[in-house]
Amino acid sequence: MRSRIVFRILARILLITGISLLSCIPVALAYNEAYSPFIYSSVLALVPAIIMHLSVKRTELSSLGRREAYLLVTLAWVMMSLIGTLPYLLSGSIPNFTDALFESVSGFSTTGSSILTDIEILPKSVLFWRSMTHWVGGLGIIVLVIIIMPSLNIGGYNLFTLESSLQEKIHPRIQSVGKRLLYIYLILTLLETLFLLAGGMNLFESVCHSFGTVATGGFSPKNTSIIDYPPYIQYVVMVFMLLAGTNFVVHYYLIKREFSKIRQNEELKFYLFVVLISGLIITGVLYFQANRTLEPAFRESFFQVISIITCTGFASSDYLIWPTGGWVLIFFLMFFGGCTGSTAGGIKMARHLIALKNVNHVIRKLIAPNAVIPLRFNHQKISYEDNNGILTFILWYMILFIIGTLFLILSGLDMATSSSSVATAMGGIGPGFGTVGPVSNFAHLPQVSKIALSALMLLGRLEIYTIVMLFTPWFWKK
Amino acid sequence: MRSRIVFRILARILLITGISLLSCIPVALAYNEAYSPFIYSSVLALVPAIIMHLSVKRTELSSLGRREAYLLVTLAWVMMSLIGTLPYLLSGSIPNFTDALFESVSGFSTTGSSILTDIEILPKSVLFWRSMTHWVGGLGIIVLVIIIMPSLNIGGYNLFTLESSLQEKIHPRIQSVGKRLLYIYLILTLLETLFLLAGGMNLFESVCHSFGTVATGGFSPKNTSIIDYPPYIQYVVMVFMLLAGTNFVVHYYLIKREFSKIRQNEELKFYLFVVLISGLIITGVLYFQANRTLEPAFRESFFQVISIITCTGFASSDYLIWPTGGWVLIFFLMFFGGCTGSTAGGIKMARHLIALKNVNHVIRKLIAPNAVIPLRFNHQKISYEDNNGILTFILWYMILFIIGTLFLILSGLDMATSSSSVATAMGGIGPGFGTVGPVSNFAHLPQVSKIALSALMLLGRLEIYTIVMLFTPWFWKK
Repeated sequence: MRSRIVFRILARILLITGISLLSCIPVALAYNEAYSPFIYSSVLALVPAIIMHLSVKRTELSSLGRREAYLLVTLAWVMMSLIGTLPYLLSGSIPNFTDALFESVSGFSTTGSSILTDIEILPKSVLFWRSMTHWVGGLGIIVLVIIIMPSLNIGGYNLFTLESSLQEKIHPRIQSVGKRLLYIYLILTLLETLFLLAGGMNLFESVCHSFGTVATGGFSPKNTSIIDYPPYIQYVVMVFMLLAGTNFVVHYYLIKREFSKIRQNEELKFYLFVVLISGLIITGVLYFQANRTLEPAFRESFFQVISIITCTGFASSDYLIWPTGGWVLIFFLMFFGGCTGSTAGGIKMARHLIALKNVNHVIRKLIAPNAVIPLRFNHQKISYEDNNGILTFILWYMILFIIGTLFLILSGLDMATSSSSVATAMGGIGPGFGTVGPVSNFAHLPQVSKIALSALMLLGRLEIYTIVMLFTPWFWKK
Repeated sequence: MRSRIVFRILARILLITGISLLSCIPVALAYNEAYSPFIYSSVLALVPAIIMHLSVKRTELSSLGRREAYLLVTLAWVMMSLIGTLPYLLSGSIPNFTDALFESVSGFSTTGSSILTDIEILPKSVLFWRSMTHWVGGLGIIVLVIIIMPSLNIGGYNLFTLESSLQEKIHPRIQSVGKRLLYIYLILTLLETLFLLAGGMNLFESVCHSFGTVATGGFSPKNTSIIDYPPYIQYVVMVFMLLAGTNFVVHYYLIKREFSKIRQNEELKFYLFVVLISGLIITGVLYFQANRTLEPAFRESFFQVISIITCTGFASSDYLIWPTGGWVLIFFLMFFGGCTGSTAGGIKMARHLIALKNVNHVIRKLIAPNAVIPLRFNHQKISYEDNNGILTFILWYMILFIIGTLFLILSGLDMATSSSSVATAMGGIGPGFGTVGPVSNFAHLPQVSKIALSALMLLGRLEIYTIVMLFTPWFWKK
């Protein structure tokens, strides 16, 4: 284990976290709120950052190996989540540590599940921090899935994100592409803020909602999420959720006007197809079975479908009171997830598409065992190892879902609440069913359930393998 | 397509079905019931059987190719199920065709779901036929999974059942082993009947319950299944369910006293392990949360666990009124299934075990990408194609489960009833949750739901691929 590079990067992440904390101070000043919690929190982040930075010699990014990367990723999210609790605890907004940790993990994992029963009584600066955790978490994910994982050739990520020419060790071109993707992240945030401001939303709420959208997080500074906003605002959020759930490499090609590369992207087509079909089905359910008129049915359906598929979790209505067909589809959509290379969580479209290709492939092989039928994705051949990794990932996901559900039931929750809490936590979505629906929260859950869900949020966000392997003997073997 | 061999075998299956129908006549005579329905039914089976047999020249069994085998299997079960409706329709016991078909498919697929609201008012001879359909269906499965599928090297069946030395084209030794396995099937039936008789059950009920157990079916001639029988009877049924869910090749080695082969059987260990752990958890739930004393808690728990895991579906109690943790575990166990090479349905233990090995394997490969880590099962290396086929089978299963559930919800059923009906139909289990629990039945379901569930029972029983591929263009291409 080359721990020097891990230390250097952790120091940099602490630095970013510290600066993010400082950025809440102007908000506190603007709203005449206490700013000391942010001063103390940022000192607790920046001092160790500087000590770590100075105590370790400069080293090349290219010395980052697989094991170091896996360990780094888990440590980074755990560290950010722990520091993220400080403003909640120090301001007294969330006095209980487990609750503060849940809220912080939910933020950095871009989940958006909350333990707050009344969001609006919190200081604006703390709510700003809450939305900021989404934005920083989303930034981390973009770096992770577009730069680190494909460079290390991990779990088929090379298939999903960059061209094969970019798939060697982290080299300058990847770093420059990576930088442009981060600009795209900034531009999307800025654009959404402007569109929301144009719809009459105030600056604070516009920025918070943009943070929550672009990171596919879902924390809103309002108790009723997006429900009470006018249709224009709902459409703006809807469009930006859809964009945030799209592979950022697609945005990159869009800006570079390489449209042929976008047309070749099978995952994008599949993503839009699933959104369209699910949205139309639920529009039909609401129109025919729930007496909505056409436009509200369309808006209500597509908002919730996009929000769940992209793992954002904003709500423009309460799907718990929909006819059965509608909410059951929403439940299954929780297992979809947006595109790889986006901030969306869950299993993700590329894996589902490759699984479907396998279903087809296996049947053809059964009929003609000696035929050579290669599995392809975006015109690249999928290797045996990658294919196996992808199918097994889906199995891991289901196994964890079942174990998590049983655990939550044994902690005293009902079936609907347990299973949907686990699905929503693993997918990084936010709301669930039962007592944790879109207009409820996670406050009433037992402490042990909250801790389990916090762990599941991290597991889901960091693509399961990354964390699980740390608990195997092979990881630590020489 | 070499249709001659398909025709010959279908003629033989019709013959067996016709003879089975004739065997109900003595029961009708003994209980002074109308025997004409069985005469008419058997004539309708035997006449075409003889015509088909005579019209096609004798041909070698070895000319059976893959496509013929797939087609044959589906045709055989559809044909048996259609003929199986005749005694219900002609006796007037089940006048509606959809209902009769559901009951017949449920019988031949060894599922055990019923549309009968009062079983005991039916003529004994018709109930005997009902249990007989299980027994004939179970016989068919043993032939299918132990002789036909491994001989054709289909979907990894060669891994599960016979030694590699037996894995060539159907040769005399496979046929002789096959015959011995059928004797084991007979012996198990006979032994259980004797044990039940010894417990004071009458001959008719003993034979019916043995048919239902050994085929892991679950039809009981009693309205309350096994609930009202004394503990001794419940233990006997429990043990024989466990034996019926075991790979019959294990029984074969047991009789040949080749114990080392049994010790090497990983699937058997995994099967017993899952039964033990689940049984103990539910014993604990019943003991601590439902105020049972120890022996009844143990018996009630293990009976239901074994019944669901082996896909039998007999009930010794109503799990719907258990504490949540108990019934949720039962729901998940519906996706397990017994051992391959047994009459049990579902995904089956070997596939789950191989999936778990993949989970492990993929993590090790992620840590050390260049290491050679072969996947093994029962000391045999699993090939890429087999492994892919197994993982994809589990995905197919989940996809069908989701589509089926959504379909049933749209037909007007609630979530618990829909999802559990689909799970129980695909696994060939019998009872579900919601309005189709162990002390209820499927009578009240809409016609369209019954047809969908009948199709799902066949799909699950015939290992999905076999039927699905008939609907692909590749199957029919030259």
